[in-house]
Amino acid sequence: VLRVAEGSDLRARAERLDRDDPLAAVRERFVLPPGVYLDGNSLGLLPRAVAARVAQVVRSEWGEGLIGSWNTAGWFALPLRVGDRIARLVGAPPGSVVAGDSTSVQLFNTLVAAARLRPGRSALVTDVANFPTDGYVAGSVARLLGLDLVLVDPSQPLDLDRVLDRHLAVLTLSHVDYRTGVLHDMTAVTAAAHAAGGVVVWDLAHSAGALPVDLLGADADFAVGCTYKYLNGGPGAPAFGFVHPRWADVAEPPLTGWLGHATPFALEPEYRPAAGAARLRVGTPPVLSMAALDAALDVWDGIDLADVRAKSLALTDLFVEAVQERLAPLRVQPVVPREHARRGSQVCLRHLDAYPVVQALIDRGVVGDFREPDLMRFGFTPLTLRHADVLSAVDVLEDVLRTQAWRHPRFAQRSPVT
Amino acid sequence: VLRVAEGSDLRARAERLDRDDPLAAVRERFVLPPGVYLDGNSLGLLPRAVAARVAQVVRSEWGEGLIGSWNTAGWFALPLRVGDRIARLVGAPPGSVVAGDSTSVQLFNTLVAAARLRPGRSALVTDVANFPTDGYVAGSVARLLGLDLVLVDPSQPLDLDRVLDRHLAVLTLSHVDYRTGVLHDMTAVTAAAHAAGGVVVWDLAHSAGALPVDLLGADADFAVGCTYKYLNGGPGAPAFGFVHPRWADVAEPPLTGWLGHATPFALEPEYRPAAGAARLRVGTPPVLSMAALDAALDVWDGIDLADVRAKSLALTDLFVEAVQERLAPLRVQPVVPREHARRGSQVCLRHLDAYPVVQALIDRGVVGDFREPDLMRFGFTPLTLRHADVLSAVDVLEDVLRTQAWRHPRFAQRSPVT
Repeated sequence: VLRVAEGSDLRARAERLDRDDPLAAVRERFVLPPGVYLDGNSLGLLPRAVAARVAQVVRSEWGEGLIGSWNTAGWFALPLRVGDRIARLVGAPPGSVVAGDSTSVQLFNTLVAAARLRPGRSALVTDVANFPTDGYVAGSVARLLGLDLVLVDPSQPLDLDRVLDRHLAVLTLSHVDYRTGVLHDMTAVTAAAHAAGGVVVWDLAHSAGALPVDLLGADADFAVGCTYKYLNGGPGAPAFGFVHPRWADVAEPPLTGWLGHATPFALEPEYRPAAGAARLRVGTPPVLSMAALDAALDVWDGIDLADVRAKSLALTDLFVEAVQERLAPLRVQPVVPREHARRGSQVCLRHLDAYPVVQALIDRGVVGDFREPDLMRFGFTPLTLRHADVLSAVDVLEDVLRTQAWRHPRFAQRSPVT
Repeated sequence: VLRVAEGSDLRARAERLDRDDPLAAVRERFVLPPGVYLDGNSLGLLPRAVAARVAQVVRSEWGEGLIGSWNTAGWFALPLRVGDRIARLVGAPPGSVVAGDSTSVQLFNTLVAAARLRPGRSALVTDVANFPTDGYVAGSVARLLGLDLVLVDPSQPLDLDRVLDRHLAVLTLSHVDYRTGVLHDMTAVTAAAHAAGGVVVWDLAHSAGALPVDLLGADADFAVGCTYKYLNGGPGAPAFGFVHPRWADVAEPPLTGWLGHATPFALEPEYRPAAGAARLRVGTPPVLSMAALDAALDVWDGIDLADVRAKSLALTDLFVEAVQERLAPLRVQPVVPREHARRGSQVCLRHLDAYPVVQALIDRGVVGDFREPDLMRFGFTPLTLRHADVLSAVDVLEDVLRTQAWRHPRFAQRSPVT
């Protein structure tokens, strides 16, 4: 049902880019849906290796190995082993990343640990545009620790300068804004926070696996991230937490579950945190979900994040140009930083009727998502998309808008999860 | 390899009990390992329905349905739907239990919420014998909220009376002690804490699915529990949290992830907790692990917890009597409450060389676990064990002890997970 625009310059460019794409073969590592899936920034595609691995964990490791599999199948080591695989993708040294829990839980744990490194300072600073869970968790941490929650608008550099002062305890930001796709300069922002005497907790939900991240190079203190978006770990896959080696033996995370203990099976009465990122472990890890994530990370073998970034920018450039060239008269306005250095791997389109338009697109196999109040959000996953797919999506969008197909009443109906 | 003691009274009793067992057919719902698995209190057996369900979630719901499965496959509703299935097994009303996160995280969240209901009171009371993670988490909560952590030995009733005074904010206890198998009188202890003006958080790790629990009848305020033991949810399966309906709209859990919000997809800037147990939701649930748990709970269809309790006590009685009758000269001492009303569904045996003896038993197909410093712990899961299995285990234990087979050096070697 997807037709292709013939003869345009963009079409020729897309063909050339696909022909020369060093990542072209990688998509075969995934189960590919029909249509154009532009929601890999909400839930990544299923890597082919996952189903067999999960089946093996269920039938053999759990069903036959039972309790012994904590040792023989390496279940106990999974959070740090998987963490090390993620570490490579976010510029973190081995032993500094742990996989587990949800992003919200990881953020709570690292924010409290971060604030405890700056006793006597009063400000927990975050971004008004930050993903709500980050704001909710920051607010809760501020309440628990008696800190002032300070909200800034980082699109205003002067604002940032104003709040990063001697009161700063912790600054927490999303590396890429979940709505606008704005990419922060992690090195510069971290340096500014450090200059003010604070520590920084980065949320990599929309950057891990989407573009090169260099936590160590940027001197980040803590980070958390999500693995079910660009890392294709599966629905609700375990999140991850990073702690810089300089804090790994002094940070005091508040979620003192037994698996973060230095000697968990000694069952000592007093809590003594393990060395390194292991102190970010909390309770027993969800082995089935963790094994799926582990298998999903196989797709990254041999992949250079520089290629991923180059393709991501080519995909979003192509999308924005096609939209501007063909959809300008249809009241569609791209929301995306023009400058590559400020852009993540997504593009939003503003439209007054964004909700039903997104539903009509999904109905025709072009899957994006809606974000309040008027944004159609499209994620561009370089491992699985072709440049031609981008133009196919614009074809469908143009048709939906021109024919006003989105006005059908069934597209107005809200689902519980949007 | 398991031989059976012939001709004893106990043998005849076991045969009769197995013949008349109303739960006899239930074991066919599980993948049954060879030997005698007495570690279902650490990791329950694999229910037969799980593998197909998990495969379907991976291949169809994730692989094909992708992001749409949050609605069409009911992923979003899973934590409360699964919670309701657990609620029936622990005497909780619908809407009062949520599945998710780890027991440690659930405990942290409910302990802070509980303490916030008693501002101005200074004592967070727990049990010196409590599972270490519970003590670690209680210590962390006490530190965050500026409370005094008070440790009691509830085997001394006078001690309990002494600490449950006007300072009591929160009392938290394991319903069944993970080592000794002592079962607390939930109703009486809760009433005593309430009389002192405090609230109670119960940990049901070793009672949910092992015996009838009546959270509402006992007037419990909060509870948490584990689903990978007697509920057979799989390695690291999601835990659960319970909040009594009287607190469901006033409790303020500190883990304010977006899915605990009243309207999570409106992405409002301010946190407003959802009504009921939904406010114990935190981040995105691990769908694969949650689906496995959901399928695992099917084995409880049509099962009366009274039958489970009766069989559990018959199994532990039989084990204790067989050990006393046959192993007394072999320096083995049962650690288990004699009184049924004080007994969970496990029996420990004290032996100076408990560690290598447990390893030698495992080597012969009798799986229990070791608990510091000198305990062999055996869990009795009424859904999957036969009374004859209990005597087979004692046969093997007797042989291991008489022949001193456990003295082989390979049984002394410690594994990372014991």
